[in-house]
Amino acid sequence: MTLRVGVIGTGAIGRDHIRRMTQVLKGAAVVAVTDVNAAQAQQVANEFNLQAAVYDNGLDLIRAQEVDAVMVTSWGATHEEFVLASIAAGKPVFCEKPLAVTAEGCKRIVEAEAAFGKMLVQVGYMRRYDRGYRVLKETIDSGVIGHPLILHCAHRNVSVPDFYTRDMSVVDTFIHELDVHRWLLDDDYVSVQVVRPRRSSLSGEHLNDPLLVYMETAKGVRINGEIFVNCKYGYDIQCQVVGETGIVSLPEPMSVTMRSEAKLSNALLTDWKDRFIEAYDIELQDWIDATLRGEMNGPSAWDGYSAAVAADACLAARDSGDIVRIDMPERPSFYRSKHSESAAEAIR
Amino acid sequence: MTLRVGVIGTGAIGRDHIRRMTQVLKGAAVVAVTDVNAAQAQQVANEFNLQAAVYDNGLDLIRAQEVDAVMVTSWGATHEEFVLASIAAGKPVFCEKPLAVTAEGCKRIVEAEAAFGKMLVQVGYMRRYDRGYRVLKETIDSGVIGHPLILHCAHRNVSVPDFYTRDMSVVDTFIHELDVHRWLLDDDYVSVQVVRPRRSSLSGEHLNDPLLVYMETAKGVRINGEIFVNCKYGYDIQCQVVGETGIVSLPEPMSVTMRSEAKLSNALLTDWKDRFIEAYDIELQDWIDATLRGEMNGPSAWDGYSAAVAADACLAARDSGDIVRIDMPERPSFYRSKHSESAAEAIR
Amino acid sequence: MTLRVGVIGTGAIGRDHIRRMTQVLKGAAVVAVTDVNAAQAQQVANEFNLQAAVYDNGLDLIRAQEVDAVMVTSWGATHEEFVLASIAAGKPVFCEKPLAVTAEGCKRIVEAEAAFGKMLVQVGYMRRYDRGYRVLKETIDSGVIGHPLILHCAHRNVSVPDFYTRDMSVVDTFIHELDVHRWLLDDDYVSVQVVRPRRSSLSGEHLNDPLLVYMETAKGVRINGEIFVNCKYGYDIQCQVVGETGIVSLPEPMSVTMRSEAKLSNALLTDWKDRFIEAYDIELQDWIDATLRGEMNGPSAWDGYSAAVAADACLAARDSGDIVRIDMPERPSFYRSKHSESAAEAIR
Amino acid sequence: MTLRVGVIGTGAIGRDHIRRMTQVLKGAAVVAVTDVNAAQAQQVANEFNLQAAVYDNGLDLIRAQEVDAVMVTSWGATHEEFVLASIAAGKPVFCEKPLAVTAEGCKRIVEAEAAFGKMLVQVGYMRRYDRGYRVLKETIDSGVIGHPLILHCAHRNVSVPDFYTRDMSVVDTFIHELDVHRWLLDDDYVSVQVVRPRRSSLSGEHLNDPLLVYMETAKGVRINGEIFVNCKYGYDIQCQVVGETGIVSLPEPMSVTMRSEAKLSNALLTDWKDRFIEAYDIELQDWIDATLRGEMNGPSAWDGYSAAVAADACLAARDSGDIVRIDMPERPSFYRSKHSESAAEAIR
Ligand SMILES: [Mg+2]
Ligand SMILES: [Mg+2]
Ligand SMILES: [Mg+2]
Ligand SMILES: [Mg+2]
Repeated sequence: MTLRVGVIGTGAIGRDHIRRMTQVLKGAAVVAVTDVNAAQAQQVANEFNLQAAVYDNGLDLIRAQEVDAVMVTSWGATHEEFVLASIAAGKPVFCEKPLAVTAEGCKRIVEAEAAFGKMLVQVGYMRRYDRGYRVLKETIDSGVIGHPLILHCAHRNVSVPDFYTRDMSVVDTFIHELDVHRWLLDDDYVSVQVVRPRRSSLSGEHLNDPLLVYMETAKGVRINGEIFVNCKYGYDIQCQVVGETGIVSLPEPMSVTMRSEAKLSNALLTDWKDRFIEAYDIELQDWIDATLRGEMNGPSAWDGYSAAVAADACLAARDSGDIVRIDMPERPSFYRSKHSESAAEAIR
Repeated sequence: MTLRVGVIGTGAIGRDHIRRMTQVLKGAAVVAVTDVNAAQAQQVANEFNLQAAVYDNGLDLIRAQEVDAVMVTSWGATHEEFVLASIAAGKPVFCEKPLAVTAEGCKRIVEAEAAFGKMLVQVGYMRRYDRGYRVLKETIDSGVIGHPLILHCAHRNVSVPDFYTRDMSVVDTFIHELDVHRWLLDDDYVSVQVVRPRRSSLSGEHLNDPLLVYMETAKGVRINGEIFVNCKYGYDIQCQVVGETGIVSLPEPMSVTMRSEAKLSNALLTDWKDRFIEAYDIELQDWIDATLRGEMNGPSAWDGYSAAVAADACLAARDSGDIVRIDMPERPSFYRSKHSESAAEAIR
Repeated sequence: MTLRVGVIGTGAIGRDHIRRMTQVLKGAAVVAVTDVNAAQAQQVANEFNLQAAVYDNGLDLIRAQEVDAVMVTSWGATHEEFVLASIAAGKPVFCEKPLAVTAEGCKRIVEAEAAFGKMLVQVGYMRRYDRGYRVLKETIDSGVIGHPLILHCAHRNVSVPDFYTRDMSVVDTFIHELDVHRWLLDDDYVSVQVVRPRRSSLSGEHLNDPLLVYMETAKGVRINGEIFVNCKYGYDIQCQVVGETGIVSLPEPMSVTMRSEAKLSNALLTDWKDRFIEAYDIELQDWIDATLRGEMNGPSAWDGYSAAVAADACLAARDSGDIVRIDMPERPSFYRSKHSESAAEAIR
Repeated sequence: MTLRVGVIGTGAIGRDHIRRMTQVLKGAAVVAVTDVNAAQAQQVANEFNLQAAVYDNGLDLIRAQEVDAVMVTSWGATHEEFVLASIAAGKPVFCEKPLAVTAEGCKRIVEAEAAFGKMLVQVGYMRRYDRGYRVLKETIDSGVIGHPLILHCAHRNVSVPDFYTRDMSVVDTFIHELDVHRWLLDDDYVSVQVVRPRRSSLSGEHLNDPLLVYMETAKGVRINGEIFVNCKYGYDIQCQVVGETGIVSLPEPMSVTMRSEAKLSNALLTDWKDRFIEAYDIELQDWIDATLRGEMNGPSAWDGYSAAVAADACLAARDSGDIVRIDMPERPSFYRSKHSESAAEAIR
């Protein structure tokens, strides 16, 4: 059985997911593509020898008979429309982050999905599929460190491009932490505070870099988050959970150990694309497999909505200096599926 | 394009490679199976929903029209016959180790292949596809540590089953080192000496456990090898290369870092099957892809022959206590393909 | 030349400093002792074969002709009186923490010392003499990580005794961080906020354990402090400084690396007394040497006052939940000596 | 009580031990000095304000009334004579390595000491006093890894000076391993083999660098030793003991952990003098304390003799390529004191 996928948006990430589904993963065929740049959609179809129709627009692609499931990898501002249309068409949809550019948009998706009565939407938060985070979660869930009490984390990039705006350190960068920590702790946020350390002189004047994000969860866990997008030394994702009887930390990425030049060292990554490259494969394979089984295992529309609400609160907290409450409507029972457990089986 | 594979031997490793080709990898279809236990072959065919003929014997399978390539995962003593038959049929063949149970058998395969005029045989030395060994080799090849001078290594198992014989620590266990170090150093062995440390009281009386293997290569590198198959504490593969300006070591397998019970610790593996699980996937995918392109990238029949000769020398050295010369005929130019480089592209 | 020291308080820490000066360090002789328990003072004098007069009270000891310098290791509530008396007598005084039980008491000492016109007081903050903190400071001062921006730290104890009160996690435990970070960063505090994570169920109900302390310094550095005095797993002091171009962390205490029982591990300390045992030796030797040269290198009365003010602010912040300003009078030029540099020479 | 020490040889190491006894350690006074360069002896006496007579020669110094104990830090070739004279005078003597420049010379000392009937000689093998080696030995002695089976070690120097000869890698460098491993394992050597890896092109043509030394002990432990005196990257002393149930390794020297320039790194030492600097202090303090108590705890004349015999065997093995037997006379019961246990108390 093959999942026939239509891809909306054939830019960098869309093209990469097409490559994955075509050359790496099992069980999917890309049967339809579209892009605002139609020529580029055709070019990608040619590049991967797709037996795929090239559609004029996403809505037509979604409605196409031969499309079983939709992948939304277009410009962020268009996500909401395409996800809503997929729900309207009753088709499973994998939407790269953000689910929508506003929390309200996410909420509309949640409501549409709930009205439809079946989970169709998976959001592209790939960290949940990273082997390191998986082992971290398994360790926490095993109870060996007792209840989690504190989570220390850092998201550090070597540097950011010129177009990187002040808000992006939250909505593009820390958003991954906002999602993965909810999942890791099986918890929800109740407040956030943001403080600004001394600005790095190597970071743009318009950026608040680094930033510290202090969060509280419903279970009382405190999260100490550091965002530093011009740290210069490497792409470094840290996560450490302090429990009642022990502490567990995310593994460092694999590297050889060197003894050279008066240093005992391990290489750190510098390119973010290398960090979660395997997670993308696992994520999409899991989506294909689950979708073929009629299930939805991954980060849901509710998760996308939750991350969006938390991100908005982070921005408000950063601008006001206040401790900002994070208020979510109660999670509908509809979303109480045991997504984490079933997804766990994607990895041995 | 799909590589139609016939599998001879549907025991543990055969069944696992069938699972891989069917459920994980791209580009292959298992179209024929056989086993000395015909019922088991049928059962595996059913388990994976194979559209596969079940053959009475390996030779028929090899000759079958629909079989493009052969996988030999039967009992070791039968490998030579099936590999030779595959060569005779002009079909690519992936043979799990050993290539043959004697060096003479391996030599017959090498000669048959050379006579045929095209490399058809890949031997299942999966470590060359392990990401850790890959990075180790890339680091050495980069020149950053200068010429390799010494290689320290250890192969340690928690324990071994009752049927494990005295010779198996060489021909089943250290054989992986015998292959991977030739590749890692791009070198050949010229001598070996084996010494017996004090025997572990937790190891069987009939085993020489641990053992030390001291080898010399054509380029003058000295290898200090430790084999310890009842080390009790974990499955632990170590490899460290001392060069003129630095030292590089194989990465430890990924694990979370724990602070608990007065220890700062990382889990070690205990089951050997977990150590190279990903390497098997990469190995077979690479074999499928290369075979479809009409190439042969992996460990060759010559490599299998070289490992067999070295293993024989290890056994002789162990029994005599002497420094035993390792004499190989000169490598035929036929085998001078740059296999390592092209295989390197299987991993990003 | 020998520094003739009078020791006030021969309890655990007093006795240990007497042992140090008598059996380990050079240049000092304990010539006078006193304790509220006179018999115990005599017993310690006997134990170490001191040629020492046993005084009725601290004030007499301070005034004694043969006493060149005073060591105050009595009950905390008595420190202020003895330090003031030492200043009045114009004698150098080493006072174990706290300098005084209130910030006001510390301030009286600072004023008395300033009025006397010469620094006489050293406070027993031994971490400044720990080799790990020394290398950490040297690394920061070298400029290799650029300006410090964030400091992450943790102070974790296995457990605390029954008499340990809620305030002690600040005034007895975190007080060491409050001192050492000022020195490490060459900076002063401007605000503090304290938040309470979920309480560990293994910690007493009356304790807020763990606690998080968020501080800001005059230079804009943000400090993320964790206090966890029932962490169960070990005595663990962490300090990591994030700079503009790199991050430097306090070394782990030395331990052998073990491979055993499926773990690659290093032992963690469990007894706090083992952590800074060497620092105490270096601290006191440095005090003896500096005092004999007529200098004062170590943590000053001003440093003791600063720590006390910061501790008071921490308590207020913990109780109010507010961000509490830390207001110190401007540091008198009198205290602008380059204490850190000269003390650095105590260690090679 | 003060140990009045006469020092023969006031060159680099002699001067440093004088500094130690005068400025760092307790219980000793340097009361006599001599050197072939009399002016230098006087200058060192002045530099440290010694109340010391300057003698014309070592023999006069040894016989001097005021000298309780002798320290021999002169040129190696003179050690035997001075140690024998000290024994003749019935005075404790601390002799820097080598005890004598030949094994026969060491044997004469052993015989003289045995004839005298009391251990007087300590040889300056300071590694036994290194905290890392101490913890390593304690771990082995605790039984936690079972019986030792294999010992892997390396002695690596950044580079060596021009005057460094081919033999020095054994008699000056590896000699420390030859001593410390006997102590660590509480064992004796029975054979040695030396093999030459490919020579580093960065090492002098006249040196066999690196070298591998394979030894066997009376208990059957096999030692894999690497000597590499031009390793370029650092001064690196490695020791790993493989036991029946686990493996324990010498700690790395303390250093801060850095994240910078795409590396997670710890500094390695480059200057050998920094590696055992603390061990020298502990060693001499222990010698002073034990001597004052009338005991002898440290490496004995027998240990010095054993190391010399082993070193001779290493040289013979290097030159012949043979496995060379190491034959020692049986250890006289005279030398069966439990030196290691009592010395262990010198730390903590
Ligand atoms: Mg994603
Ligand atoms: Mg294999
Ligand atoms: Mg103190
Ligand atoms: Mg020495």
